[in-house]
Amino acid sequence: MVFISKRSSRLLLSVFTAIGFGLSISAWIMKPAPTPPPNIVLFFMDDLGYGDLSCTGALDYTTPNLDRMAAEGTRFTNFLAAQAVCSASRAALLTGCYPNRLGISGALGPNSPIGLNPNEETLADLLKEKGYATGMFGKWHLGDNKQFLPLQQGFDEYYGVPYSHDMWPLHPAQAQANYPALRWIDGNEPKQEIKNLDDASQITGTITERAVSFIRNHKKKPFFLYVPHPLPHVPLAASPKFKGKSARGIFGDVLTELDWSVGQILGELKQQGLDKNTLVIFISDNGPWLNYGDHAGSSGGFREGKGTSFEGGHRVPCLVRWPGVVPAGRVCNKLLTTMDILPTVVKLCGARLPKQQIDGVDWITLLKGDNTVTPRDHFYYYYRKNSLEAVRQGDWKLVFPHPGRTYEGFLPGQGGKPGPSTETHEFPAGLYDLRRDPGERYDVREQHPELVAKLEKLAEEARADLGDDLQKRTGANVREPGRVSK
Amino acid sequence: MVFISKRSSRLLLSVFTAIGFGLSISAWIMKPAPTPPPNIVLFFMDDLGYGDLSCTGALDYTTPNLDRMAAEGTRFTNFLAAQAVCSASRAALLTGCYPNRLGISGALGPNSPIGLNPNEETLADLLKEKGYATGMFGKWHLGDNKQFLPLQQGFDEYYGVPYSHDMWPLHPAQAQANYPALRWIDGNEPKQEIKNLDDASQITGTITERAVSFIRNHKKKPFFLYVPHPLPHVPLAASPKFKGKSARGIFGDVLTELDWSVGQILGELKQQGLDKNTLVIFISDNGPWLNYGDHAGSSGGFREGKGTSFEGGHRVPCLVRWPGVVPAGRVCNKLLTTMDILPTVVKLCGARLPKQQIDGVDWITLLKGDNTVTPRDHFYYYYRKNSLEAVRQGDWKLVFPHPGRTYEGFLPGQGGKPGPSTETHEFPAGLYDLRRDPGERYDVREQHPELVAKLEKLAEEARADLGDDLQKRTGANVREPGRVSK
Repeated sequence: MVFISKRSSRLLLSVFTAIGFGLSISAWIMKPAPTPPPNIVLFFMDDLGYGDLSCTGALDYTTPNLDRMAAEGTRFTNFLAAQAVCSASRAALLTGCYPNRLGISGALGPNSPIGLNPNEETLADLLKEKGYATGMFGKWHLGDNKQFLPLQQGFDEYYGVPYSHDMWPLHPAQAQANYPALRWIDGNEPKQEIKNLDDASQITGTITERAVSFIRNHKKKPFFLYVPHPLPHVPLAASPKFKGKSARGIFGDVLTELDWSVGQILGELKQQGLDKNTLVIFISDNGPWLNYGDHAGSSGGFREGKGTSFEGGHRVPCLVRWPGVVPAGRVCNKLLTTMDILPTVVKLCGARLPKQQIDGVDWITLLKGDNTVTPRDHFYYYYRKNSLEAVRQGDWKLVFPHPGRTYEGFLPGQGGKPGPSTETHEFPAGLYDLRRDPGERYDVREQHPELVAKLEKLAEEARADLGDDLQKRTGANVREPGRVSK
Repeated sequence: MVFISKRSSRLLLSVFTAIGFGLSISAWIMKPAPTPPPNIVLFFMDDLGYGDLSCTGALDYTTPNLDRMAAEGTRFTNFLAAQAVCSASRAALLTGCYPNRLGISGALGPNSPIGLNPNEETLADLLKEKGYATGMFGKWHLGDNKQFLPLQQGFDEYYGVPYSHDMWPLHPAQAQANYPALRWIDGNEPKQEIKNLDDASQITGTITERAVSFIRNHKKKPFFLYVPHPLPHVPLAASPKFKGKSARGIFGDVLTELDWSVGQILGELKQQGLDKNTLVIFISDNGPWLNYGDHAGSSGGFREGKGTSFEGGHRVPCLVRWPGVVPAGRVCNKLLTTMDILPTVVKLCGARLPKQQIDGVDWITLLKGDNTVTPRDHFYYYYRKNSLEAVRQGDWKLVFPHPGRTYEGFLPGQGGKPGPSTETHEFPAGLYDLRRDPGERYDVREQHPELVAKLEKLAEEARADLGDDLQKRTGANVREPGRVSK
């Protein structure tokens, strides 16, 4: 005979309670609460090349947090920076436009007379309007005059550096550079100076700390967190915890620290229970600055690097993670660009598009796993002020004759000193089949005159719209950058 | 008051029994059984380049099983095939010797008059002597005459193809090639013919099935399982389950199937509880055969490919997994080669070294996680019959003037038809710093005459030992290949 013990009767009571509770849960599930809009975390690295993650082939150091992010999300292998240089690339990311449409080109210097026009509606503006908390921690580089700084461009909070941290008196290639002191900016206020490599070694840690605090402080509200890390742009510096640890030298140390930073931020999302409803994007502003040799990254086999219209200048890693929405462990080769981030994110967040013309396309369907769609048909490779150096449709790329930067034929530098490169190499015309020839080595214009004609027609559309300095053409739809008011 | 129910008293009895049993377990633990020798699984891919895994940067398809293997083990990024061509590379792997020491070079054809000399002691011979079950499933290519086949070289079991599966009447580049029928070999017996791409599409699946059965049948005994997959060598063929599935086309389909194969074999190890005591190594025989274009792999940015002494010919992925012994999630950049597999594995298995001279070095200390050691000091890049094309010490590589294969300057083929390449390009001398310049583009002989002298001295040692056709020198320590006895 079996008695029901006190413990057993307590257990039965619990079972009944659980069933009752279960019923109330079911009732609640049947009338679902509206899904809250996702949080957005956007990492934007500086001069990090296609081959600089372990999951894209890096040698001699590991990026385990980024590799995990790739495995838990989708890795896009045909993702292009809108222009292969810092300020221009950042303008495109935040506005969804070709940077030359906004009058932004190159890398703005200290005391720049121009900046991103505050009339442009940035991703931060649009998400802020929708009720998002908007925070930015890292490198701005779209005008260091107060009227252009992030707080005037849609961000509630900002802490970072106003431009590249080689623009200081200790510039590795320009000992005589007459740059002003480089200072951290907190909101609109200049703070302590970054005087040397010791100070620079705290950049990644400081930004990480601020980003983690932002998540902790805004967990009740949807947020947009923009983390444009100033590294691995030269001069390279890693904090003592990472310095000297990688077999690759300082570049590997810096990448290890940046990977740690991503891990800290993803970890905080998990800690706060926000992990499942946060879209995280990891990209870079352009390819590696190859003439820095062992202080530069790798374009992973693509031709040339930063400052060129070959794939090594534009092709950057792109990892996207959103558990349950973006398929895990997938690699996707559809053509996409930094300009496509804005229309995609605003739509996912229920915000609106900018009122003025943009160039980005929404890739939500592809992002969610439907590989049959092709969101982006073509891309224009502009460089310098407004030179159309190449145009691409699908895997076909037509390069126009142009003077441009080359690293080939020059021995790269080492130890932080750059080797030479030239800005005036005369590149001939070429038609490249990026599927068969990802390294852009074999001109096939003769074999495919019909494709040359087709791509020429696309280029004509670009010229009419945006202009082309190489042909002394002015575009019809170019807007003005912001100018410092005196 | 609480009664002890029948159930509770049964529980108490179980607890006492468990404690008693636990005590006997403790006694047994205190007198540990000797650790059983590890099982060895060795994957050897064909023409798979450095950049052909997702974890080394592949575009447009994924290799999730290999990526997981890399994450659970160590990825070696400075691992070289001993010679950049099929038969030579295989001879080195199985003997721990430079292939020219054994009189093996190039790729042996059907009805080859020579083969791996059965007097050589292979890895299979040494492990078999130690009591290992030895099985091989895949491509042999060290002589198709019966006297050279795997059963005569230390393997208990063999099922596979005797040489490359483009050596058949349907060779993509040689419509008139007068090759005999290509047949599966079971043990020593020729079996059914591989007549066309449909038959070829079953190669990977068949080998996988045999390898999985071998594990199942030998789980009671330590085993050595050698899986030299005949793909992704051309002609490419994937089974219906994989065909047409990858955005990369047939090359991606084939890689996806090969990755699946690795997953099946690793899964079977786990299923049989052998996972923890098995050392798994994944490598490739040489770099990609680049003139096949979209049917070829990628050297991941290294210069040239298969059949050359540049890094694209020799540098292959190397993943090593042994839970609890080989550190997980590590990337290691120390110079290693296929020749180093034999001395390392025989030592780990308690077997002996071959009696004759070998060239491999044991890298157990490094493998187990001690990055302070440098097991291999230098490497000789031999090609053709016996030409010393380059020599390397650490990150410094001296290339000697030589005629050689180049893919550069030639448009790669597509759709399975090769583009041209030349075997007679005249490569000039060059000293390359592989750390600063992994693409071997910048000759720095002028800057480093002392390194040129040092590497020349090493080359002289190689010539005295192994000879050098480029200098009409005969080596003192070269052995004879096996010759078909009539």
